[in-house]
Amino acid sequence: MQVRLDELKATTLKVLRLSGYSQEQAEIILEVLMYAQLRGNNQGIVKLIGAGMPADVNATAIKVLHETKLSALLDGGRNQGMVVLNRALEMALAKAREHGFGIVGTNNTNTSTGAIGYFASKAAQAGFIGFIFSGSPEFVAMHGSYEPIFGTNPLAIGVPSAEKPLVFDMATAAIARFGVIEAKTAGRSISPDVAYDGEGQPTTDPAAALAGAIRTFGGYKGAALSMMVEVLTRPLVQTTPNEEGRKTDWGNLVLVFDPGLLGDADTFKQEVAGLVGKVKATKRLPGVDEILVPGERGDRVLDAILASGMVEVEDNLWQALQAKA
Amino acid sequence: MQVRLDELKATTLKVLRLSGYSQEQAEIILEVLMYAQLRGNNQGIVKLIGAGMPADVNATAIKVLHETKLSALLDGGRNQGMVVLNRALEMALAKAREHGFGIVGTNNTNTSTGAIGYFASKAAQAGFIGFIFSGSPEFVAMHGSYEPIFGTNPLAIGVPSAEKPLVFDMATAAIARFGVIEAKTAGRSISPDVAYDGEGQPTTDPAAALAGAIRTFGGYKGAALSMMVEVLTRPLVQTTPNEEGRKTDWGNLVLVFDPGLLGDADTFKQEVAGLVGKVKATKRLPGVDEILVPGERGDRVLDAILASGMVEVEDNLWQALQAKA
Repeated sequence: MQVRLDELKATTLKVLRLSGYSQEQAEIILEVLMYAQLRGNNQGIVKLIGAGMPADVNATAIKVLHETKLSALLDGGRNQGMVVLNRALEMALAKAREHGFGIVGTNNTNTSTGAIGYFASKAAQAGFIGFIFSGSPEFVAMHGSYEPIFGTNPLAIGVPSAEKPLVFDMATAAIARFGVIEAKTAGRSISPDVAYDGEGQPTTDPAAALAGAIRTFGGYKGAALSMMVEVLTRPLVQTTPNEEGRKTDWGNLVLVFDPGLLGDADTFKQEVAGLVGKVKATKRLPGVDEILVPGERGDRVLDAILASGMVEVEDNLWQALQAKA
Repeated sequence: MQVRLDELKATTLKVLRLSGYSQEQAEIILEVLMYAQLRGNNQGIVKLIGAGMPADVNATAIKVLHETKLSALLDGGRNQGMVVLNRALEMALAKAREHGFGIVGTNNTNTSTGAIGYFASKAAQAGFIGFIFSGSPEFVAMHGSYEPIFGTNPLAIGVPSAEKPLVFDMATAAIARFGVIEAKTAGRSISPDVAYDGEGQPTTDPAAALAGAIRTFGGYKGAALSMMVEVLTRPLVQTTPNEEGRKTDWGNLVLVFDPGLLGDADTFKQEVAGLVGKVKATKRLPGVDEILVPGERGDRVLDAILASGMVEVEDNLWQALQAKA
């Protein structure tokens, strides 16, 4: 159904406040959820339904564990991942404003950071090239294996442009874990090449996949890339394993730099916009109406919503959200 | 045939000197070619056969176009790509030794940088996490298109470890352009999902593919990643287009940082080695003898060569190299 944007935001904020977040935390999480919701990304308000995202009652203040002029490592204090990653981005941007580069890692959170394209986009809007890497529990197998060892390990890259920023945001898994759960709930099967069951056989049964492992995207190359994200979000940011060596917290890494480190930043932004134009003007395959660059599909959805002030939300989802408010 | 390693190196060095490179340049190129050749990577001595890699007679000294404490942009002066990228890496490492981070871009080269894993590996051996991005002419199409607009756009990531460094090195193209040329020469067909002909039809004919476009790996995600490498190796490093807007030079970017920016570097290296052990110990799919981590396959080939002092080289290739020496 069509919901007024301001009503969707107010209801979401109310649910977040009722979930135990401070006004400041709730506003940060709202922004990240809306970034997803208003771009047709499935990491939106659905996160608040069912068990939802209650604040950890044992959460403590975010602490700086290590800091240099260019870097920091943050102990997230079991706060919500989006709140901690937002702090990390702010610190990285402050360092990059001063020195041209900033890198900040986080550990000791155990909740999703949502659509990390939000953070890459924010870096790009501030004029910086931003890389965001996010870890999660062991759901995904290495190439050649069917035992989960990696997170779904998304990475996002934001690039400033004289027009809209380019925002690349992808999981290195062949399917989001949430997609498997959705399929199970809906009684749908999953594609035969995205997961293994607990015996190492390809499976289309989401329940079997949840007992087995999700595969990485793009064959051995995607698996190798997933392992690199694992390195950057696990040993580099010092997540804490349990006695069996499994992750007890989820790590994140933000790396931002000023394109002005290599020359004139405005010229760079103009040329990024020019490159986008060139790419969009290339010859299209049969049946392709338009070449879309990273982030563009979501921008289109958002622009339509902002123009009308109305958001299409599934009936069930909107009712469930209102019931929680 | 089996060739003595020292003889292979001496012959290769001689061919490089005869190709117009100074002793210093020839030794740098030799190292990069041997990195590939001794790891079973196809970017080795085959590059010296046929037209080979003659030095550009109009090459001038590498110039620093822009520099900050953390960064530089180099004009490669039409020198060989490996020589220029090696200089960029040395500068980036010097800056990272002083500040923890260094980023150096290059333009004005128009030759291959070879197996860029070499540079990522060198960064890792020096104790730094290194990202290498390399551009090339327009051979690869964006997702939804069949008109070449991107290079094969490899990226490499090197990670220091208490054991062997992890070295990730991949093209974002579905097949190396060289692989298409090899197939054409050998009269072989290519896989049906790696290229389009000039009309946008999938093709298995390498000649048709060369007149059309190579595809990116991993569907739209791989295409988006290729576009990010394009941004980092084209507008960011200020390559020069011709009147039609096509690339006349190939850009490269080196980004290195000290894992010590986030905590204790030795602990990090230990934990990377621990993660590698965990990944290798995961349950294997039927028919898989061993889980290999990024760079490991090549390390195995190299170790065998170093142990025996002998390298297996195709008869034709060795004869062609000797004929040039």
